Amino acid sequence: MKIAIDAMGGDHAPLSVVEGALQAGVFCPAELVLVGDEEALRALLPDGISSGVRVVHAPLVVSMEEFGPTAIRKKREASINVAMRMLAEGEVDCVVSAGNSSAVVAAAKHFVGLLPGLKRPALAVSLPTTDARPILLDAGAHPESGALHLAQSALLAHMYLRVSRGIERPAVALLNIGSEATKGTRAVQRAYALLHRSSLNFLGNMEPHELFAGKADAVVCDGFVGNIVMKMCEGFSEWMMGELGSRVAPRSTGLGTALEDLKQGLAYQHVGGAPLLGVKSPVIVAHGRSGRSAVSSAIGLACRITRDRICEKMADIEQGASAVDFKQFSAMVFFENFKTRWSSAPK
Amino acid sequence: MKIAIDAMGGDHAPLSVVEGALQAGVFCPAELVLVGDEEALRALLPDGISSGVRVVHAPLVVSMEEFGPTAIRKKREASINVAMRMLAEGEVDCVVSAGNSSAVVAAAKHFVGLLPGLKRPALAVSLPTTDARPILLDAGAHPESGALHLAQSALLAHMYLRVSRGIERPAVALLNIGSEATKGTRAVQRAYALLHRSSLNFLGNMEPHELFAGKADAVVCDGFVGNIVMKMCEGFSEWMMGELGSRVAPRSTGLGTALEDLKQGLAYQHVGGAPLLGVKSPVIVAHGRSGRSAVSSAIGLACRITRDRICEKMADIEQGASAVDFKQFSAMVFFENFKTRWSSAPK
Repeated sequence: MKIAIDAMGGDHAPLSVVEGALQAGVFCPAELVLVGDEEALRALLPDGISSGVRVVHAPLVVSMEEFGPTAIRKKREASINVAMRMLAEGEVDCVVSAGNSSAVVAAAKHFVGLLPGLKRPALAVSLPTTDARPILLDAGAHPESGALHLAQSALLAHMYLRVSRGIERPAVALLNIGSEATKGTRAVQRAYALLHRSSLNFLGNMEPHELFAGKADAVVCDGFVGNIVMKMCEGFSEWMMGELGSRVAPRSTGLGTALEDLKQGLAYQHVGGAPLLGVKSPVIVAHGRSGRSAVSSAIGLACRITRDRICEKMADIEQGASAVDFKQFSAMVFFENFKTRWSSAPK
Repeated sequence: MKIAIDAMGGDHAPLSVVEGALQAGVFCPAELVLVGDEEALRALLPDGISSGVRVVHAPLVVSMEEFGPTAIRKKREASINVAMRMLAEGEVDCVVSAGNSSAVVAAAKHFVGLLPGLKRPALAVSLPTTDARPILLDAGAHPESGALHLAQSALLAHMYLRVSRGIERPAVALLNIGSEATKGTRAVQRAYALLHRSSLNFLGNMEPHELFAGKADAVVCDGFVGNIVMKMCEGFSEWMMGELGSRVAPRSTGLGTALEDLKQGLAYQHVGGAPLLGVKSPVIVAHGRSGRSAVSSAIGLACRITRDRICEKMADIEQGASAVDFKQFSAMVFFENFKTRWSSAPK
């Protein structure tokens, strides 16, 4: 098993990425391939650590400010491109990157390719609830989504949970601002109609305050909303810990430990990375702000997903039928929406 | 001072609305006008309470499932329409409703009208941070927004904070999934460009985890995202209280009191309602799930906003110039985005 790591991606790259890889090397059975500026990377690696960590040179870097789809075409030799090409050609089994996520997504689509019939990949994160840990997707692969993209994300969630957690018919919900089918943006309303007619175990709309009740196995939204939700969890927990900590003397009460426990469970350093579902081979996207331990956790996740052959199993599920279904329904739903909205009789 | 209350709007209407009005009647100096089915309302009111609370008959109700803009046109005599007509004709000074918010927004636009040059009103809620309490808008008046809508929301926030809190140049930020100008949806990217060129004190993009740091006075987003953020705060705080409560014995440690304090500060029952900014006269939208105390708080807010003449003062500020500015910039920004995205030279 070989894992390529985009050593130049992330706010604290390449230092934190190299440190994270060395940390992960201790427990991870894979050979780690650091892709990036060879000179800079060699300087960061301790002498004589040839076993387990290898360096592959890539002269360019896609920065966080660039627009992914154009950046990966202009900078052919960027670290993320080199890593994805290695994945596409079978030289490595998985890619991990904390870099510009739009570039990671674009490079994955361009070099590795998607499952047949799929329009887009989606980034799936685990929500920090106690037991069930529903997944939320898309957590930021594409900020804007149409109805078909949302419906296909639900399908990806279904396939992923079936393969990775063994749930036969995972319960999938749409994140919305009301429970009624008429609430939300037009894309969400139409996705509701598509999913309602599909063979998935669709629970309907779910409001954000229900996320933590653990009713659904997966919650679907567009990448902008998903990313907002994820970062809200982060920010709100930090703020609330601070608030509570300042009101109660932490050491005397055991509250200190409880807060610390909760913080560990919520912190993105420990969650690490998110799988980019729908790509033919495993790609793990880590938080742009990843420090050493976040990178190390992301590599750990990459090891598990590669070992369990999640992507291969997802490709094996017969999913072509559902993907086509959604397309046929699309036009029908448009006319039905139109009818209900404008022609129902006044009460 | 007279306040009309849509007695038929909300999940627990009319009971909780009537109870809330009676509770507010104790401290609120205004005459309260309950608008709704007279028979049903009379049955809920205790005998002999003619002073302070009046009933105006409206035979129809817009339910939570309906699409506001069409519902208010079909049901001419719905309670929300009757209340808004009274506001437009000067019979009352303010309207409070916990009903279908798309209907409240549509009726406010249709009967009362907006400030000159404005495309849409926006719902402004206070975020539950400790000191600064930044406002977030739009919190759900319109689920979808273009760049101009977002920019005008920022202008509304500027005007509202100047008038209500006396801040000369309120700091306004855009809620986004990254700090760079190129992040987020196309609407948010273009709103960034518009605000960057405006005379407002624009801080740039703000990520959700920074919301609680209290840097901005107002944070702007579309109604879908705003509503999600608001309900995330609600749900996350409830979940986290439960989590912490189960790990630490609350009574023995004083944690119980601390949690209770925090809960009070966050609960929507105590925040109550949100002003619909941009409408010529004051309109307060309460949470659909409002119980008695939430309705009472919303009426309290209505009293303060009406007493302080916030809407009149907002209309007095010279704002026409800025509203026009945004329109002229709109086309220019489109071409600039196009240029930066597709024609910059590779590094």
